[in-house]
Amino acid sequence: MVRLHELRAGESVVELPSQMDAGLVFIGRIHTPWTDRMECPRQGRLDGPTCRIEVFEPWVAALDGITEYEQIEVLYWLHLSRRDLVLQSPANDGNVHGTFALRTPARPNPIGTSIARLVGIEGAIVTVRGLDCLDGTPLIDIKPERSLFTPIAPPQPGDFEIDDSGSG
Amino acid sequence: MVRLHELRAGESVVELPSQMDAGLVFIGRIHTPWTDRMECPRQGRLDGPTCRIEVFEPWVAALDGITEYEQIEVLYWLHLSRRDLVLQSPANDGNVHGTFALRTPARPNPIGTSIARLVGIEGAIVTVRGLDCLDGTPLIDIKPERSLFTPIAPPQPGDFEIDDSGSG
Repeated sequence: MVRLHELRAGESVVELPSQMDAGLVFIGRIHTPWTDRMECPRQGRLDGPTCRIEVFEPWVAALDGITEYEQIEVLYWLHLSRRDLVLQSPANDGNVHGTFALRTPARPNPIGTSIARLVGIEGAIVTVRGLDCLDGTPLIDIKPERSLFTPIAPPQPGDFEIDDSGSG
Repeated sequence: MVRLHELRAGESVVELPSQMDAGLVFIGRIHTPWTDRMECPRQGRLDGPTCRIEVFEPWVAALDGITEYEQIEVLYWLHLSRRDLVLQSPANDGNVHGTFALRTPARPNPIGTSIARLVGIEGAIVTVRGLDCLDGTPLIDIKPERSLFTPIAPPQPGDFEIDDSGSG
């Protein structure tokens, strides 16, 4: 079961700070087939249904060149998730796991990251497969998939630094 | 050259909204060998130098179970980056690319994502290789690397949905 708002046996919550340290701007909205959290995939699949990523102005120009990439990384804000859980019981069976050892939406900064297959782009709409989020999820970033991207700028000294321990 | 604050030939900026849509809490701090943006790697490498991820309270308990994963996904806030560029010239040569077709730190929501190799954990300190960020970078999330993670909760209907177009 997807968590709605309940706290489960064995779970541990903390108090969120009252002040935030940085602000996000929603740069678009993601349209998916899933309008109920009880139906969303646990994990997207690259042969999954097409989803449409709508990019808002003034960010549409920033899509220029994205079609060079077969896969993109999509970051989104899991706006319905609770943020105060440090230990969670995904199977609701009394066994708990640390939030950072899970890819659950419930986390202090509820940001989802997915790798999606680019199907096409038309104006402000990027069509993809591979997402797993709820219809209406706010978009926060799009990047080329990391292994497909080669930096355009020249390398810097850190690009050549390797293992400093002699043990690895 | 890494961008410090300059605007380059051909680049395009927009006005950031005055109000943010969501808030982030910094849950830790990343310690790396790079204290100058002119030295950071463009992209981390899994055989790179060890870096230490310091997790702040009350989030340390959320690391429970993380050692099951050889690789983790790390999200951090690129706190020195400008956020208003939609077209950028990474090589500073007059050729521009959309921000979403780059993995540049300068983006509307300057969140970096890296896959790092887990070296070890001791208390609140997670030691990894593979990061590329500046010393002192704020941490915003840690997750198991996606391909290594199997959801613990039972699947939902969306997990079985595939391609709806018939076109592949």
